[in-house]
Amino acid sequence: MPVLNLRTDFAPPGDLSEEMNAIGRRARAAARQIALAPAHTKDTALRLVSERLRAERDTILAENARDVEAARAAGQTQALIDRLTLDAGRLNAIADAVAKIGALPDPVGRQIAAFERPNGLLIERIAVPLGVIGVIFESRPNVTADAGALCLKAGNAAILRAGSDSHRSAMAIARVMRAGLEAAGLPGDAIQIVPTRDRAAVGAMLSGLDGGIDVIVPRGGRGLVERVQAEARVPVFAHLDGICHVYVAAGADLDMALKVVLNSKMRRTGICGAAETLLVDRACAETHLAPLVKALLDFGCAVRGDAATQAVDGRVTAASEADWRTEYLDAIIAVRVVDGLDAAIEHIETNGSHHTDAIITDDMAEATRFLAEVDSAIVTHNASTQFADGGEFGFGAEIGIATGRMHARGPVGVEQLTTFKYRVHGNGQTRP
Amino acid sequence: MPVLNLRTDFAPPGDLSEEMNAIGRRARAAARQIALAPAHTKDTALRLVSERLRAERDTILAENARDVEAARAAGQTQALIDRLTLDAGRLNAIADAVAKIGALPDPVGRQIAAFERPNGLLIERIAVPLGVIGVIFESRPNVTADAGALCLKAGNAAILRAGSDSHRSAMAIARVMRAGLEAAGLPGDAIQIVPTRDRAAVGAMLSGLDGGIDVIVPRGGRGLVERVQAEARVPVFAHLDGICHVYVAAGADLDMALKVVLNSKMRRTGICGAAETLLVDRACAETHLAPLVKALLDFGCAVRGDAATQAVDGRVTAASEADWRTEYLDAIIAVRVVDGLDAAIEHIETNGSHHTDAIITDDMAEATRFLAEVDSAIVTHNASTQFADGGEFGFGAEIGIATGRMHARGPVGVEQLTTFKYRVHGNGQTRP
Repeated sequence: MPVLNLRTDFAPPGDLSEEMNAIGRRARAAARQIALAPAHTKDTALRLVSERLRAERDTILAENARDVEAARAAGQTQALIDRLTLDAGRLNAIADAVAKIGALPDPVGRQIAAFERPNGLLIERIAVPLGVIGVIFESRPNVTADAGALCLKAGNAAILRAGSDSHRSAMAIARVMRAGLEAAGLPGDAIQIVPTRDRAAVGAMLSGLDGGIDVIVPRGGRGLVERVQAEARVPVFAHLDGICHVYVAAGADLDMALKVVLNSKMRRTGICGAAETLLVDRACAETHLAPLVKALLDFGCAVRGDAATQAVDGRVTAASEADWRTEYLDAIIAVRVVDGLDAAIEHIETNGSHHTDAIITDDMAEATRFLAEVDSAIVTHNASTQFADGGEFGFGAEIGIATGRMHARGPVGVEQLTTFKYRVHGNGQTRP
Repeated sequence: MPVLNLRTDFAPPGDLSEEMNAIGRRARAAARQIALAPAHTKDTALRLVSERLRAERDTILAENARDVEAARAAGQTQALIDRLTLDAGRLNAIADAVAKIGALPDPVGRQIAAFERPNGLLIERIAVPLGVIGVIFESRPNVTADAGALCLKAGNAAILRAGSDSHRSAMAIARVMRAGLEAAGLPGDAIQIVPTRDRAAVGAMLSGLDGGIDVIVPRGGRGLVERVQAEARVPVFAHLDGICHVYVAAGADLDMALKVVLNSKMRRTGICGAAETLLVDRACAETHLAPLVKALLDFGCAVRGDAATQAVDGRVTAASEADWRTEYLDAIIAVRVVDGLDAAIEHIETNGSHHTDAIITDDMAEATRFLAEVDSAIVTHNASTQFADGGEFGFGAEIGIATGRMHARGPVGVEQLTTFKYRVHGNGQTRP
């Protein structure tokens, strides 16, 4: 089956920019209703969506099979086809995730702060939804359900844009979500999917749909995130790279260092929280470097090292300058010996991506300085970098991990999909 | 004295964009130091700045006199010259404000949240500085000191860009601040002023100085804010309009309504929290409308009204559609009778600017709905809209009021000039 021509599936036909702005206007109208929806109504909607994802299994899997067939015909890589393919087990996992998001505490309406002023005014700071969230993703069809459910839970409307390869699967899942919303009495427009493969739709979303989008979340590879960060005219929650470091300091217990370094690098090599660089304090290099390097090599990890690292094992190849700034997302690690804490911090600040960085040490003073001075979204002490994850943080689920400094940082869960307003309660106060 | 030619005061001469990027790099380096500075060091610096502002009075006032003379020669308005002019009293007030900011609690390092995971990981969410804040202002020289002090207190570096008219005054104040910082052992580059009147410097700041600026705060009129919001490639804390409403509901006590409406409109008409529109519930129009309108008129406020409002007093002129969306910043108010709470909310959501809106009523159910459904940064019940102010909120001071939804909303005090990071404390945990 040939890949569909661009926009043949866009009905009614019309000017793309106007179609997209209309999606934005519908989202904005729905957002106002969702923002005020009681927690139990949103949770009912998510429960219904979860049930319908199971009930509509055959339809969704049939649409997914068409996506997979088209991707094969187009000669896509096996890795992409793996990400794209759904089966009954994966669809159940998607339905479970939606139900779990429904069961999270409602982040909307939380009293974040409250204070009474000398004039008797009571001022409350209350969590309210962000508004309309645009999610742009690639081939994983589960993002439709995950991202839509997270946005809804936080009282937002979502505009989802699936990658060309997963378009049919995403449309099928989005139809089920709309039906679930409407069955709960909520506006179906709260979770819309862009019904075209035209890449210009992405540009329209990045421009903000004439005020119809408050924030963009890209879910996909570096190319997508880079384009979104460069072109977006609205705020973006994302990270471009996860160049995560583990620093083994002089005060590190070797057994703990071995365990945490191996886990940080090798538990899963393809996730953003995987370590890419190991820094070892020169003060403990004699005892710690060789065992760490050999353990990594024996575990199947390629090691690229500085001169000191190359000296400990013949299998180590030379690291280039570029290696210190490379996110391998693979079983490769760059290893360097540094002159103590200051040099480690300097290396991380110069080469890192402000995502997640770890120190291994039993010296609390050293750990405290590292946690304070490394300017990353997540800093860990004696713990694997692979804990950089919303589920591991106890957020229930996340829409992604952000390395920006504004609003959301680290795992972006439902709480970070809200903003706040001030409610001021008086009894006739006027300002002198 | 003629206005200086563009860039004659920029030394050394060179490519503007490169000069600006160099300012950004110096700010970034200083920001790293300021972020880690102990609270007492920042507070000492602000105390020294405050003292030096008083000690250097004659120099600052002489530079200010040159600005004022140039503004007069250029035929600037009296209003601008008033905003521009410093005297001993105003300079003392500036010094007092800096000292007061120094005495605020340190917003950096606060533990915003902490939670322990089942695996024993302790995760803390800790306030850290935003980074480098660009402040673009117009003719008020006090912004140099206020904004610089607020940024520093929150551990940020500041890049200040003064309006052409206040350039000499701002430079003189910035020199004093640099000296105060350095006397306290902090990097002088933490508060830099752009040493050129070239308007292209604003464009460079809006582009983010090649990663040298994290957020822009415009301080000035609508034209400046509009340009900044349209062109900035970095986040902006600002509000474009303050179209604030007071809704007098059927359940309103007339005496309270009179008091709060007059204060909201007339205490100061030129501030963003001043009311611009009065909405009166049709259910109480017979008793409340005429007294409210006559009180406003008698107080010297022009009233532009709908037909019902025009009927109660011959001095009322007809409101046009544009009046509902106009920020007068003057002794003018638009008045409209609406059919109850839903119509009031609909009017505010359609015409307002999401800044500050008030309801006057003794009916708690009605107040609760208004506070929930009006989607503004600040909503008040039985209290003047003119409380929209960082000082009145107890924030000590503010760098402005934001109506955006991301990160900062309402008065932007030192707390909103921070972001956060996660510190994860383990004892060897690895992810299964």
